[in-house]
Amino acid sequence: MTGIRRIVITLGIALVFIASAIAQGADPLPSWSDGAAKQAIVAFVGEAATQNGPRYISPSARIAVFDNDGTLWAEKPLYFQLAFAIDRVKTLASEHPEWEQEEPFASLLKGDTKAVLAGGEAAILQIVMASHAGMTTDAFEGIVGDWLSSARHPKTGRLYNEMTYQPMVELLAYLRANAFKTYIVSGGGNAFMRPWVEKAYGIPPEQVIGSSIKTRFEVRDGRPVIVRLPEIAFINDKEGKPVNIDQVIGRRPVFAFGNSDGDLQMLQWTAAGEGARFMGLVHHTDGEREWAYDRASHVGRLDKALDEARKKGWTLVDMKNDWKRIFSSGQL
Amino acid sequence: MTGIRRIVITLGIALVFIASAIAQGADPLPSWSDGAAKQAIVAFVGEAATQNGPRYISPSARIAVFDNDGTLWAEKPLYFQLAFAIDRVKTLASEHPEWEQEEPFASLLKGDTKAVLAGGEAAILQIVMASHAGMTTDAFEGIVGDWLSSARHPKTGRLYNEMTYQPMVELLAYLRANAFKTYIVSGGGNAFMRPWVEKAYGIPPEQVIGSSIKTRFEVRDGRPVIVRLPEIAFINDKEGKPVNIDQVIGRRPVFAFGNSDGDLQMLQWTAAGEGARFMGLVHHTDGEREWAYDRASHVGRLDKALDEARKKGWTLVDMKNDWKRIFSSGQL
Repeated sequence: MTGIRRIVITLGIALVFIASAIAQGADPLPSWSDGAAKQAIVAFVGEAATQNGPRYISPSARIAVFDNDGTLWAEKPLYFQLAFAIDRVKTLASEHPEWEQEEPFASLLKGDTKAVLAGGEAAILQIVMASHAGMTTDAFEGIVGDWLSSARHPKTGRLYNEMTYQPMVELLAYLRANAFKTYIVSGGGNAFMRPWVEKAYGIPPEQVIGSSIKTRFEVRDGRPVIVRLPEIAFINDKEGKPVNIDQVIGRRPVFAFGNSDGDLQMLQWTAAGEGARFMGLVHHTDGEREWAYDRASHVGRLDKALDEARKKGWTLVDMKNDWKRIFSSGQL
Repeated sequence: MTGIRRIVITLGIALVFIASAIAQGADPLPSWSDGAAKQAIVAFVGEAATQNGPRYISPSARIAVFDNDGTLWAEKPLYFQLAFAIDRVKTLASEHPEWEQEEPFASLLKGDTKAVLAGGEAAILQIVMASHAGMTTDAFEGIVGDWLSSARHPKTGRLYNEMTYQPMVELLAYLRANAFKTYIVSGGGNAFMRPWVEKAYGIPPEQVIGSSIKTRFEVRDGRPVIVRLPEIAFINDKEGKPVNIDQVIGRRPVFAFGNSDGDLQMLQWTAAGEGARFMGLVHHTDGEREWAYDRASHVGRLDKALDEARKKGWTLVDMKNDWKRIFSSGQL
């Protein structure tokens, strides 16, 4: 027996021992109750990883996509990125005395969020552009990081990134342990998510697909920078999700998770591929530990996608009953 | 000693043996002559992988970006994607009798490529839209695959994807073996590249960043499809390269390779980051085995980037002297 051959055999034996130790190991989804949702997930992943099985998926095709707001972290009473934008406008107000007379800024600065939201998409867009554009990408990353390390959620008093969902963090890790590549596909901004999602979810920046504004390459004093412009590049919601998945990933996911009608087309696109697939929706049913909402909610409305999930047998996560614990930090 | 502990130690010892076998093993870049370019690459990669060394790069930051046309495969006498577009227009001509009277199609169908190119960007755009839009993404993938398996290069008589550069294929594999994530960042279309680059270069679809046209999600007879529209979404060239790298990858590469002025901003953006970085240019100097061109060429002009590379000490690959072999297939 040659030296190399002996090494390879030794390594092989060691790997078999380790694999069996892992297989017999701890529950990878300890925050999930042992209900239908957990069973569906574990069955799908187990079958996807079973070579020669009828529902085997080759590792390179194991693309899993997740919405963020309401799927991986909370989204009430307002999308957290909108809370960031509002805080940012308040911070910048001293440099913009004209905002005292100008809507939606005047209402925002008076603390009248309802009046701001009554301005609809146009008002929100103005706030987003005032808060998200005009600086370099490096500067924006710093601004987001500063906000996340200091701003507190109005109801829970926690840092916003302490309101990620522990069961979903476990699900992401479980998928990756089974060779799935996990992506975020969110209506939120890609530049808003990238500074913190790797630490929160284990998802690197290059696996974050979000809405975006246009940017421009410039050389300033001999140093190249990328500047954020006040113009929408892409709204990554509804039909935009499968479109952007196709443009950026270039292949169809086999696993998709959302929580609202904004995720319906992404789920449909995932479902329509060949072979084994998994479609899941987080249903916000826990008014005590989190929020309970679906068809009538303005933020995170779940109506058509709820009907389609029931009709097609997609996995519905009943937050109240399926999740032993909600948030990644704290006691809930 | 517990069972698990013994396994881990055995595994560790086995891995050390294997790593040292690999380190002493075959040259990972056999098609490269032992000149300055190869030495610069090997030194950079070795130092990047040396933990606690002054030029160590953490694995997650090892992002390497490569232009495609003229960097990973040939681009003469025409960008190969333009050859595809021209062939496609010829195939579709029987369905478009009006093209006999309409420029640039009339010249193209008469075989007068010069007259077509004299029409400039507008003419090329018309040809691209006629050949690249109007079908589903699935259908387009099939069309590209069919063309690549049958069309032949006018000078070499080879299939186009037999004209990839063997030294660059080796470089890509060498980088990946050292935990670099390799990306294509090309002016070519992402949907044109994705069907074949994984087999050719080992780069999966989700690591291909290219120019793109707009697409639309539709449900046809209950089945979701994505349809390619005759409208440019993004031109991934010059300033567009760092802009798109930032939008899609969300972090700055540490390694970049191009061959023309269209790659200059990507190289500048890579160079301007902190810590160790590598910037390289393929200089087409081999008129015998390939083509010799730089400052005066319309396709793949290398002028400003050549000056900047010399001024800044970026690595210039002299194709004639640095590459023992050019193409991945055949004898050259």
